Amino acid sequence: MDLVQQILDGNVRAIARAISLVENGDPQAVPLIKALYPHAGRAYLIGVTGPPGGGKSTLVDKLIAHYRTQEQKVGVVAVDPTSPFSGGALLGDRVRMQAHATDPGVFIRSMGSRGHLGGLAVATADAAAVLDAAGYGVIMLETVGIGQSEVEVASQVDTTLLVTVPGLGDDVQVLKAGTMEIADVFVVNKADRDGVEKCVIEIEQLLGAREMDESTFLPPIVQVIARDNKGITELAGAIEKHRAHLAAGGRLESRRKQRLRNQVHAIIINKLDRWAHARLTDDMEARENLEGMYLRKTDPYAVAEEILKQLALNDDQ
Amino acid sequence: MDLVQQILDGNVRAIARAISLVENGDPQAVPLIKALYPHAGRAYLIGVTGPPGGGKSTLVDKLIAHYRTQEQKVGVVAVDPTSPFSGGALLGDRVRMQAHATDPGVFIRSMGSRGHLGGLAVATADAAAVLDAAGYGVIMLETVGIGQSEVEVASQVDTTLLVTVPGLGDDVQVLKAGTMEIADVFVVNKADRDGVEKCVIEIEQLLGAREMDESTFLPPIVQVIARDNKGITELAGAIEKHRAHLAAGGRLESRRKQRLRNQVHAIIINKLDRWAHARLTDDMEARENLEGMYLRKTDPYAVAEEILKQLALNDDQ
Repeated sequence: MDLVQQILDGNVRAIARAISLVENGDPQAVPLIKALYPHAGRAYLIGVTGPPGGGKSTLVDKLIAHYRTQEQKVGVVAVDPTSPFSGGALLGDRVRMQAHATDPGVFIRSMGSRGHLGGLAVATADAAAVLDAAGYGVIMLETVGIGQSEVEVASQVDTTLLVTVPGLGDDVQVLKAGTMEIADVFVVNKADRDGVEKCVIEIEQLLGAREMDESTFLPPIVQVIARDNKGITELAGAIEKHRAHLAAGGRLESRRKQRLRNQVHAIIINKLDRWAHARLTDDMEARENLEGMYLRKTDPYAVAEEILKQLALNDDQ
Repeated sequence: MDLVQQILDGNVRAIARAISLVENGDPQAVPLIKALYPHAGRAYLIGVTGPPGGGKSTLVDKLIAHYRTQEQKVGVVAVDPTSPFSGGALLGDRVRMQAHATDPGVFIRSMGSRGHLGGLAVATADAAAVLDAAGYGVIMLETVGIGQSEVEVASQVDTTLLVTVPGLGDDVQVLKAGTMEIADVFVVNKADRDGVEKCVIEIEQLLGAREMDESTFLPPIVQVIARDNKGITELAGAIEKHRAHLAAGGRLESRRKQRLRNQVHAIIINKLDRWAHARLTDDMEARENLEGMYLRKTDPYAVAEEILKQLALNDDQ
C-alpha cells in the first residue's frame, strides 16, 4: 500500500490522511494500521489530562518546544468533546498551538470524542500508531475533562500528567480524587496564583492515603507557569524520572502489555456496541419491546436478556 | 419479596438497601428492579451536570427546598468519580446537602462511577426506579464533570440542566460545546461574578449555531446565585416550561422511550463488557496473543477478531 510507505517516510499529508481514516472509522483504516503495526512501538507516549481551565494547551505548547530542542519529532493528538455545531469553538482552542505550525517536526491534530463506546480509545491508539510508525519519538495525547474518556486515554500512554490549577473550588477535590489513580505526575499550572500551597497540600494529602510499597512510584508534584515557560524543564525531568522508573524491572513492558490489552478490549467493545445499537434500532421485536416497557408490561432487563440470547456467551458473568 | 413492599411503602431503610444492591451490582438487584418496575414511571427526572466548580451541590440543595414547598418528595442521586482512597473527599462534598438530612421527604444518595461500561447508567436508572416506585415525585441525578458518564446520565432524564459559572477560562468554551446537545436549560450560577454577560453571550452564540425548526425547544439561559437562593423560582419555571414542551405532541413519550432504549443498551453493554474482560484476562490464548502483540508479530485488530469469533454476531457492522 502506497500510503503505508508514505507514512513510514514521514510524509505529513499521508499522516493526516491516515488519521482522518482512523477518526472517521473508515474500513480502510484497519488494514492500514495492521500494515503500520510492525513499524510502531518506538515512541514514548505522554497523556495530558485534567479539569477545564487548567491551561493544558499552553502547557503542551511549551512541552513541544522543550522536546524540539532535543531534536525529537513531536506528535500531539488533542481530544475534544465535539458536537455537530461546535467546530468553531474547537478551532479557536487549537489556534494557541499554532506556534509550531511551520515546524515540520511537529504534528498536531484534534480529534472528536463522539461515536460508539471504545471508539475514542481505538481512534487515539490508532492515531498514535500512525505517528509512531512515522518516526515521532514523543507523542502527547491531550484530553479535556474527566471521565471514562480520560481513563481510556490514560490507559494508552506511558506517562500520564494530571494538570490542575489553584482555586478551582471544592468540586476539584472530588475530581482529583477520581483521577488520582491515573496520574504519574501532578502538574500545578498557573502556580503564581493564590492558593497554590493549598492545592499542593490537597494533592499530598490524597497521595498520602495511597497504598505504597517499594515498587510504587510516588507521583511528583511539579509547579509550573506554562504561559511564562516556567517549570517546563523540571516537568520534563519528572516525566523522565517516571520513564526511568518504568524502564527498571520490566515495568514498561508490563505497562505496554496492559495498553495492548486495553486496545483489544476497546476494539471488541466498539464492535459489540455497534451490534447492540443495530439490534435496538432495527429489530421489529425490539420496537415492540419498547412499547411494552413504556406501558410497564415488561422491563429493560427482560428485553436485554432476550437480545443477548442471540449471542452464545460462553460464561455466566 | 418483602423488600419490594417496604419500598412501595416508602420505607427509607429499604430504599437505601435497594440502592446499595443496585450500586454493588448484586445479583438480587435484578429481580428487585423487575418487581418494582410496574410501580415506577410517575416521577419527573431532572439531570444536573456541568464542569467542576459550578456550585451544583448548592444549586441542587436550593431546588430541593423549592420542590419541598410544593409538597413533593424529592430524591437525589449524586454521581461522583470515585477511587479506592477518596471516600473522605466525597463525603465532604455531600455534607453541604445535609440541610435536608432530617426531612423524611428528601432522600439523597452518592453513587460511585467505577466499574464496567454501562454500569453507571444501569445503576443510576435502577436507583431512580427505586425512588420512583417509592413515591418520590421529583428525582435529580447530579453528575460532576463532562464526558461519557454525563451523556449517559443525561440520556436517562426528562430535563437536563447544564450548570456553568462565569470566568472558568477558555477550555470551558470547548466543554460547553460538547454538552450543548444534552442541555435543556442552561444555568449560569454565581451570576454576581464578573464576566456573567460574556458567559451568557457565549452560550447564546453556541445556541445560535444550532439548527432549529418549530418543534425545537430553545433552551432558556437562567442566571442564579444559588448560595443566596436567588433565581431558583425562575429556574424551576424554566424546568416547568421544558416539561410543558415535552408534554405537548407526545414528546415526553418519545423521550421516555428513548430513555428505555438507552437503558436496555446499557444493560447489554455492561454484560458484554464483563464478557470481554473475562476473555482478555482468563484465556490462555489471549495471553499468548498479548506476547505476540508486544513483539509486533500480531496486532490488536487480529486478536480482537479472533476473540469475537466466539460470538455469533449476525451482522457485519
